[in-house]
Amino acid sequence: MKRQVYLHMKSLEEAWHLFSDRFSRVVPDREDVPVEDALGRVTAEPVYARLSTPMWHCSAMDGIAVDAARTYGTNELNPLVLTEHSEYAWINTGQPLPAGFDSVIMVEKVHEIEEGRIEIRAPAYPWQHVRKVGEDIVATEMLLPACHRIRPYDLGGLIGAGVSSVSVWRRPRVGIIPSGSELVDHRAAAASRLEPGAVIESNSIMLAGLARECGAEPVIHDMVPDNEEALRDAVRRIVESDVDIVVINAGSSAGTRDYTVHVLREMGDVLVHGVAMMPGKPTVLAEVSGKPVVGNPGYPVSCVMSFQQFLRPLLFRFQGLKAPEPDRIAVEMSRDVPSRAGTEEFLRVNIGKVGSRYIATPLARAAGSISTLIRAEGVVRIPAPSEGIRQGDAVEAELLVESSLLADTVVIIGSHDMTIDVLADEIRSGGSPVRISSANVGSLGGLIALRKKACHMAGAHLLDPETGEYNIGYIRRYLPGVAVSVYHLVMREQGLIVARGNPLGITGVRDLCRGDVAFVNRQSGSGTRILLDHVLKKERLNTGSIKGYQHEEFTHMAVAVDVLSGAADCGIGIYAAAKALGLDFVPLIREQYDLVVSGAFVADPLMKTVMDTVRSPGFRERVTAMGGYDPSRSGELLVEITGEI
Amino acid sequence: MKRQVYLHMKSLEEAWHLFSDRFSRVVPDREDVPVEDALGRVTAEPVYARLSTPMWHCSAMDGIAVDAARTYGTNELNPLVLTEHSEYAWINTGQPLPAGFDSVIMVEKVHEIEEGRIEIRAPAYPWQHVRKVGEDIVATEMLLPACHRIRPYDLGGLIGAGVSSVSVWRRPRVGIIPSGSELVDHRAAAASRLEPGAVIESNSIMLAGLARECGAEPVIHDMVPDNEEALRDAVRRIVESDVDIVVINAGSSAGTRDYTVHVLREMGDVLVHGVAMMPGKPTVLAEVSGKPVVGNPGYPVSCVMSFQQFLRPLLFRFQGLKAPEPDRIAVEMSRDVPSRAGTEEFLRVNIGKVGSRYIATPLARAAGSISTLIRAEGVVRIPAPSEGIRQGDAVEAELLVESSLLADTVVIIGSHDMTIDVLADEIRSGGSPVRISSANVGSLGGLIALRKKACHMAGAHLLDPETGEYNIGYIRRYLPGVAVSVYHLVMREQGLIVARGNPLGITGVRDLCRGDVAFVNRQSGSGTRILLDHVLKKERLNTGSIKGYQHEEFTHMAVAVDVLSGAADCGIGIYAAAKALGLDFVPLIREQYDLVVSGAFVADPLMKTVMDTVRSPGFRERVTAMGGYDPSRSGELLVEITGEI
Repeated sequence: MKRQVYLHMKSLEEAWHLFSDRFSRVVPDREDVPVEDALGRVTAEPVYARLSTPMWHCSAMDGIAVDAARTYGTNELNPLVLTEHSEYAWINTGQPLPAGFDSVIMVEKVHEIEEGRIEIRAPAYPWQHVRKVGEDIVATEMLLPACHRIRPYDLGGLIGAGVSSVSVWRRPRVGIIPSGSELVDHRAAAASRLEPGAVIESNSIMLAGLARECGAEPVIHDMVPDNEEALRDAVRRIVESDVDIVVINAGSSAGTRDYTVHVLREMGDVLVHGVAMMPGKPTVLAEVSGKPVVGNPGYPVSCVMSFQQFLRPLLFRFQGLKAPEPDRIAVEMSRDVPSRAGTEEFLRVNIGKVGSRYIATPLARAAGSISTLIRAEGVVRIPAPSEGIRQGDAVEAELLVESSLLADTVVIIGSHDMTIDVLADEIRSGGSPVRISSANVGSLGGLIALRKKACHMAGAHLLDPETGEYNIGYIRRYLPGVAVSVYHLVMREQGLIVARGNPLGITGVRDLCRGDVAFVNRQSGSGTRILLDHVLKKERLNTGSIKGYQHEEFTHMAVAVDVLSGAADCGIGIYAAAKALGLDFVPLIREQYDLVVSGAFVADPLMKTVMDTVRSPGFRERVTAMGGYDPSRSGELLVEITGEI
Repeated sequence: MKRQVYLHMKSLEEAWHLFSDRFSRVVPDREDVPVEDALGRVTAEPVYARLSTPMWHCSAMDGIAVDAARTYGTNELNPLVLTEHSEYAWINTGQPLPAGFDSVIMVEKVHEIEEGRIEIRAPAYPWQHVRKVGEDIVATEMLLPACHRIRPYDLGGLIGAGVSSVSVWRRPRVGIIPSGSELVDHRAAAASRLEPGAVIESNSIMLAGLARECGAEPVIHDMVPDNEEALRDAVRRIVESDVDIVVINAGSSAGTRDYTVHVLREMGDVLVHGVAMMPGKPTVLAEVSGKPVVGNPGYPVSCVMSFQQFLRPLLFRFQGLKAPEPDRIAVEMSRDVPSRAGTEEFLRVNIGKVGSRYIATPLARAAGSISTLIRAEGVVRIPAPSEGIRQGDAVEAELLVESSLLADTVVIIGSHDMTIDVLADEIRSGGSPVRISSANVGSLGGLIALRKKACHMAGAHLLDPETGEYNIGYIRRYLPGVAVSVYHLVMREQGLIVARGNPLGITGVRDLCRGDVAFVNRQSGSGTRILLDHVLKKERLNTGSIKGYQHEEFTHMAVAVDVLSGAADCGIGIYAAAKALGLDFVPLIREQYDLVVSGAFVADPLMKTVMDTVRSPGFRERVTAMGGYDPSRSGELLVEITGEI
């Protein structure tokens, strides 16, 4: 196998400069659009008023129009009586001033003596309560400068000033070429069973959405197989069409089937191959026939990051705009995050406001995991020279959600349970803006996060084998002197998850030591691990004799997936995870899962929302339907421990 | 004239509660959309994964697939040679693991001995560098909760997990009824001359744009004349159609032709008539046949404010969302702003960052002036109980532009000159994101703003009659000890602006005292006023004998408009203003207009952008074309005064 290398690998900053400098003199096309279609478009030249507003002298008040000169000398002692039509006229706000009148007296100051005759007791001065021609906008005046994105009130100003069409930059067109022989169209995938190895093509629609959010117009090309000839043809065809920018996704890496860089080198000029960023390293930046061509990586998170760094700023610039800066806030990292020096890392994080601090908890860093981007509230950049972030360090996060939502976010760190997802959805379905941000670090990890004031509540199911009691003993040990309240969430079945039909005939933990069973475990510190160890000890079994005891996963679903996929024969987890994937289940114990709530949070209005939902019939029904759960005491306050808040 | 009163006048907060409580139980319709059309839509129910991603165990690296068990015991001293196909297979990132293999060794760790035979020097462990089935997303897992606005990466997740259509809330439909006999369609207005009193209907398209920005779908009804019958018919028709919300614009005030409130009282339930807010008081909030109906005010700024307070939050709520909070920043007011207690005022302000402070300068407060909303960077709310804001007070502004733009905004406070608008446009046209925010307070006002550090530069043309010199003497008097640099902007013609053809035969200032000439002046403190007084004094003329000497305007264009509209016969101003409106001009003096730049700003990169543009041929050509300007020395540094920065 011939392996390529990244010949033009560059730092993020260098890569951007090489790329953007090459296209700094591109002048986009312009087009005229009717003003009613101009919302969100960007002016290509200044827009001038054709008419003045108001177009006539008109009244700014409801009242009467008069000739001011006639009213001079009027006062309380010398009231003035005026006759309708010749000396005054009733007028409403916005109506034009009749000829011969130059002033308005408001209705409150007018005494009607009889139909057609009124009295006033103060003089009017000329142009009082009159909106004069052009008071708002004067014909010929510049209304909007060039390169201005048109907002709704700009439309009001334009129309009022007689402008009926506007010259705007044409939306930049982005040609998107999905490339890869393994790709299958998502509509085809919905209709039929997929061949092994097939991958549903999703990046092109994601890229199209990202392009639309920049005001650009995406054009998605047919899928191109991994074949140099086919890719060359596709690039030629699309570069010769009317697109302004081309994106090839993927094939930009340095593998044996990654033709993008060859083809682009042959057809044009490769400026950068490989960028010292993560995710997003396998990015190609090139020019073909004067047009920017980006080969961007196939992993979905890499694909997004590469788009945001290179395509987004270019698309805005092609419309005469600077890309809007993301909202940023200062966050504190809830745990250490080492990072590789020399590479700029984009770390997806959950963020919630705990007390007065915003706490960020890193999500999984795999570039292939689009779900991390979906679940993240923000992205923390770890600059290239840095070796990582220490727990408690203050860093900046770029937000992926409205910053105001963070104050409505409940941060749950601790043990993983699937009912937390149901809880989050039930809250949102009820119309509440409250969000749940949950990080799975195990029950003990949750208690430690509470001690560090890094979360509002921790999910825990820690059995004390001495007393048979859950959580309380651990709280006293790990959170001495800290005020917390413990609310019951659910009772749940823990057991062994096995393949459908239980082909190895597993009946209990004793079978794990048989030698022919590949086991998958949960991480140390998780309540489930503690539970397993407790059961093994009670049965006097040796962990060393269990094949796969060291094979750890962080969630129940991950364990179930290992069993489903054959990566393991058996794992420890909850019934609901087995049921969700159609697996079999050998029950071991019925355990108690609680929410340990920070004393500082108990009186927070968000807490009320959470507990009202936990106690609602909707939540209980859905949890019951998942199987293996008993929510009959959900929401009960178990104990309130006083202490430091 | 029978005058109505606001029977149900309420505070802003009360009004919102009365209105929103009435519609708190509305459940909007839902619809299924294909995933490729789902960007920006809001989920009506949770979305679950149909398939897992990855769907197969696949390689996370380029390298070889092996059976891990076969590699145990391999090390530097005991390398292992493997044969292709039976013992290993080349694999690229993303490719499925062939049957019989459970681990991947990255290509960098593989030594190819010959075609078909490789050597390794370290063992592999099971599932190393393998993305296992469901590692990212597990089939049946909840991908998105209900009431979630779909972003581009959500699309990636949905498609990858086999979801091809999504149940979303139908976009709320907003029926908009433009009402008023004076209204003319903007397309008709473009085609023919307008009858006196006609007003181009612009609010409906502005409201449609505002509704679109909330994710709603506007439906604009035909214009309805001021006639109770016609309005009743229109409301009935539109309420019976499939719209979710109705807006009637305008006729919501309490004038003789304001039928909205009558009609709504007859057809349904008027909850509020009149809201203690400014602009926006004449708002009607009602219910007809279970649907919310808003009568909103006709003045464009009132129309926008009423929409933002009542319709925007309701439209978001109808999609299961909370309306995003506007970006807010702390600003300092550059001058006193009195306000009426009992009314919540929305004050449009220009905002720029001067040093480390954001300085807000109020724009005109007229509700009819849409141009103030176009020019504003933000809105400051003055709460109902407050009597106003004092200069230097720290208050919050809601931003109408990207907050990042404020750091790119050059604040020019002082004398008004039309070349400042050209300068702003030339900078933007050149592709720079730099904005100019200018406030017209006269030359002396500008120097005082510089002293208060409320601006970056001041436009000034202050003649010292003793020396014949411009600006320097005033700077020494008003800015003692302050570091400033003075740059020349333009020479310009000042004179008397008269009607076309100069019907009164005005030849100079002496004619202003004739008694038959209605004059319009500029405000005290403006350089133009100082210039006029200087000329009058030199000619030994008495200001008391000039009719209209007290009639003041704040800009050259306002003076020219007064002459154009007949509000005055003659005014003082620059040639370019007369030329722009096709008026005649009697020259008086050629004067010098300079930019006085704060010493703290001289070295700022924004300053370079401004001065490069001032010195550019493009700027000079456009300024010359306006007439009455001589830009031959534009951008020259006249004097640098050292002092406190």
